[in-house]
Amino acid sequence: MILYPETDLTFTRTIQAPRSLLWECWTTPQHIKQFFVPRPHSVEDCEIDLRVGGKFNTTFNVDGNTMKNDGVFLEVEEGRRLVFTDAYSEGWKPAADPFMTAIIEFEDDGHGGTTYTATARHRSPEARQTHEDMGFFGGWGTVATQLEDYAKTLVGK
Amino acid sequence: MILYPETDLTFTRTIQAPRSLLWECWTTPQHIKQFFVPRPHSVEDCEIDLRVGGKFNTTFNVDGNTMKNDGVFLEVEEGRRLVFTDAYSEGWKPAADPFMTAIIEFEDDGHGGTTYTATARHRSPEARQTHEDMGFFGGWGTVATQLEDYAKTLVGK
Repeated sequence: MILYPETDLTFTRTIQAPRSLLWECWTTPQHIKQFFVPRPHSVEDCEIDLRVGGKFNTTFNVDGNTMKNDGVFLEVEEGRRLVFTDAYSEGWKPAADPFMTAIIEFEDDGHGGTTYTATARHRSPEARQTHEDMGFFGGWGTVATQLEDYAKTLVGK
Repeated sequence: MILYPETDLTFTRTIQAPRSLLWECWTTPQHIKQFFVPRPHSVEDCEIDLRVGGKFNTTFNVDGNTMKNDGVFLEVEEGRRLVFTDAYSEGWKPAADPFMTAIIEFEDDGHGGTTYTATARHRSPEARQTHEDMGFFGGWGTVATQLEDYAKTLVGK
């Protein structure tokens, strides 16, 4: 995938869980609630319509405050690639001030685990910087660790 | 389809040409050049990759000035519905300042013609108003007339 260093934030790590399981975690509301925001923040609600243009809506609890995030999927390539954004809500209604577009990629690592790449794309270098300052690498890194820990509890279930 | 009157502009008209032909006009670069902007403006170049996330790039000649518009398709429902936007260029690269999302719908009118609905969606009431002031209804209406005239020349070919 072509990267745009001025406006993208991205990292890759190996997760010790199979690709199919990580995909299931990323596309199922009950699983999303277990890893999607860094603890002690939490996901109170999640709605998923897993198709291009379908909703991906989440409600976070951040220090007791409710944050509602509506978005849609732009690409759904089962088990391999998920693209979503807050630039639209369901029905292609444009958001007034979108923040980012996320691309999550899953590849077999050849040893039973998954090479996991998370990329956040922004509209401007300033938006990218804001996201980095908000703690992109720490936050999304923590989410990847939570995902790995949670996915391991599901192996064989 | 749900409409948002504060941020949408839309019109419906009957076009005396079959749905399949209008779809072909809307999805083929050589045809796009024949109707896509109100004359005497013209389309100098058009690139189409007809799939979700694929490019829909056009270059206009407006009073001798070249205007390049890069976009992507968000939905491609053959013969029925085409959704595209300038909010992204190919590869889901977000645009800094997107203008609109367009939804073009084609339905059989039951008499060999097509009920043609064009909707432009905007990020804010102000953006909608700007588009209306730029001449949305006249401009897109002229384009529909040019499409009808051009499509009629293709019947039976």
